[in-house]
Amino acid sequence: MSTARSPLAPAAFPLLPPIAGVTPRVARARYKAWDRTDLTFVTLEPGTSVAGVLTQSRCPSPEVEWCRKALVLGEARALVVNAGNSNAFTGHRGREAVEAVAARAAAHLGCQPSDVFVASTGVIGVPLPIDKAEAGLDAAFVAEPCSWEAAAETIMTTDTFAKAATATAIVAGRTVTLVGIVKGSGMIAPDMATMLGFVFTDAAVDPAFLQSALSAANTKSFSCITVDGDTSTSDTVLAFATGKAGNTPLVDADSDGADAFAAALFDVCLSLAQQVVRDGEGASKFIQIDVEGAESDRSAHRIAMSIANSPLVKTAIAGEDANWGRVVMAVGKAGEPAERDKLSIRFGTTQVARDGLAVTGYDEAPVAEHLKGQTVEIGVDLGLGDGRATVWTCDLTHGYISINADYRS
Amino acid sequence: MSTARSPLAPAAFPLLPPIAGVTPRVARARYKAWDRTDLTFVTLEPGTSVAGVLTQSRCPSPEVEWCRKALVLGEARALVVNAGNSNAFTGHRGREAVEAVAARAAAHLGCQPSDVFVASTGVIGVPLPIDKAEAGLDAAFVAEPCSWEAAAETIMTTDTFAKAATATAIVAGRTVTLVGIVKGSGMIAPDMATMLGFVFTDAAVDPAFLQSALSAANTKSFSCITVDGDTSTSDTVLAFATGKAGNTPLVDADSDGADAFAAALFDVCLSLAQQVVRDGEGASKFIQIDVEGAESDRSAHRIAMSIANSPLVKTAIAGEDANWGRVVMAVGKAGEPAERDKLSIRFGTTQVARDGLAVTGYDEAPVAEHLKGQTVEIGVDLGLGDGRATVWTCDLTHGYISINADYRS
Repeated sequence: MSTARSPLAPAAFPLLPPIAGVTPRVARARYKAWDRTDLTFVTLEPGTSVAGVLTQSRCPSPEVEWCRKALVLGEARALVVNAGNSNAFTGHRGREAVEAVAARAAAHLGCQPSDVFVASTGVIGVPLPIDKAEAGLDAAFVAEPCSWEAAAETIMTTDTFAKAATATAIVAGRTVTLVGIVKGSGMIAPDMATMLGFVFTDAAVDPAFLQSALSAANTKSFSCITVDGDTSTSDTVLAFATGKAGNTPLVDADSDGADAFAAALFDVCLSLAQQVVRDGEGASKFIQIDVEGAESDRSAHRIAMSIANSPLVKTAIAGEDANWGRVVMAVGKAGEPAERDKLSIRFGTTQVARDGLAVTGYDEAPVAEHLKGQTVEIGVDLGLGDGRATVWTCDLTHGYISINADYRS
Repeated sequence: MSTARSPLAPAAFPLLPPIAGVTPRVARARYKAWDRTDLTFVTLEPGTSVAGVLTQSRCPSPEVEWCRKALVLGEARALVVNAGNSNAFTGHRGREAVEAVAARAAAHLGCQPSDVFVASTGVIGVPLPIDKAEAGLDAAFVAEPCSWEAAAETIMTTDTFAKAATATAIVAGRTVTLVGIVKGSGMIAPDMATMLGFVFTDAAVDPAFLQSALSAANTKSFSCITVDGDTSTSDTVLAFATGKAGNTPLVDADSDGADAFAAALFDVCLSLAQQVVRDGEGASKFIQIDVEGAESDRSAHRIAMSIANSPLVKTAIAGEDANWGRVVMAVGKAGEPAERDKLSIRFGTTQVARDGLAVTGYDEAPVAEHLKGQTVEIGVDLGLGDGRATVWTCDLTHGYISINADYRS
């Protein structure tokens, strides 16, 4: 299935430090007829706090429901990620599979099943085979710890490259470190956490503040990307904090170092989110859309997403066509306050339209040049207020059709 | 630009009767560098009433604004349609072009400019050239009347076949006849009139009732189709009633024959709307989506549109892949009430999932067979209430990408 590495991929997997208290391992559960690792088992030392952002889909996977309940307790001892089968829409058999996975991991670690977080990704509608999951967990438990890169590769499905990011922050005089991994390439959509993302830190962070920092970071990162406007049943972002850095625990936004930690968490989330876009199915261009002058930030976000999800905008960019009329169309259809005759649009740094019509003496040459690059910027100024938003997406190419017209087969 | 005739096109253009009081003519305004007719000038005898449904885009074309104002008066003497240039997002120059077109047509006919309805379709952002429009109108005015087929061809842009429909109704003992033409293939989206559609009838109909019948028909026809979820700046559906059939005028829903007329108008609108889908850019499959058991009809419509606009559902059908998990995903992301464990899905007549999981002993063979056909039916039962809706769309193929990655060039 996996196609060539995305042309938008970074040159190499980043150098990542270990996180004290976090030990990743992988195994071959063989959820599909393949010979690759597809089960990730990350153990977390006692005292690890957890926060999460989960899909708002009305048809969530049983893994999402499991995590939603477990998050209330705020503590974690393990994370299990299955790739190749999302276990979504599988009724009681799917729920039983998640319970079995959590129970098996808990038995290995001597903890409660509710300390085990489970996420799965892949085809919808097929119950996760419990026997394969249990055998995989058993194998992972006795395996050597693995690299972050191996873990990031093991959670992939249609992804063409492994995705990770790291950051540090000074918290009350102590350096804390964060590492995040993510997978996602298609079925990527707005207003949600996107697919599976996991951030690990050695910082000591109270679960409530970890949740608030993660939610804030999510709003400006994972919730600001889209590949195809399709929202997964399984979207999950979890953050785990082991406390091994020995900092005075962060309990709220006023704690010493809280801002630095939140900024580092945001950096990691943003990098991961942008890497998902860079691995968008069939993507050949990375597109940033900046909307300003909207009536509110929320309105700006919805207009930006209307542009980012427009197949006509995305195909125009794939064709390196400076078809800014399609941007006008996407603004117009967003259902948000907009006045045509106050609207301005730029591509890159070139203003193409102002106050409702093409700029006088508009020269397409610099825009055509900008569109030839791998990164395209579209700027929209609504001229109404102070609301602003930035979102990221990719173009829509033949590659997307090829990948999705025969994914399941 | 124009590609091969859609595989979903009807075998032939329908046989259409003339409509008393309606005279179509066409001309070459040469809005683009082509040698085809691109200006349609339909004259309407005095006493013709008019109704319309226009785009809800916040960035409408000046033609849409013109029609919105003129509709208030309820009378029409002419319709002018320009193809190849939508004149949208062109500021005061676009407004002046519409005024010039209406003034020229009115001068020919000795009527008020507000009796002239104008619609344009094509590239956004380039003012309609007034000199070409005026010369085209002058040529059309002295041209021989043309066939409906010539008029339907002249309003086309990326369309691959000319679209029309007809119906009759008995109104208070008199037979009235309707003929409609429509264009549209891409930038076709929900909750709006779609692109350009025109219905002509010899019935005598009061403008207010014509409007109410047209709005009702639109809700169940043009507003129930989508090709790509992108909403045009220029969507316009107008209905003209000349009164030449001599029936007692229809003034409201209680008039003798009002139901028959409304049903005939709906038949014409539905046929036109479905023909737009059958000419969806790159389409290889015609897809009907039936949603029932929703909390309300409106909720059912939104869920159906979420499925119809999902690129993952549309690519799966292009690939003849019975990937019903993507239908679950699209239901889940619609933001409407849904309970996963009450959800049932069918493809054609085959139930594939019931009560939140695959049916026992699910046999994919009949579904695979159904997906090989040109018409695909997806049924969703939410199991919550009595709300239902049906919408129509097409699949998403390489053809869509090819057409739209270089449309403007």
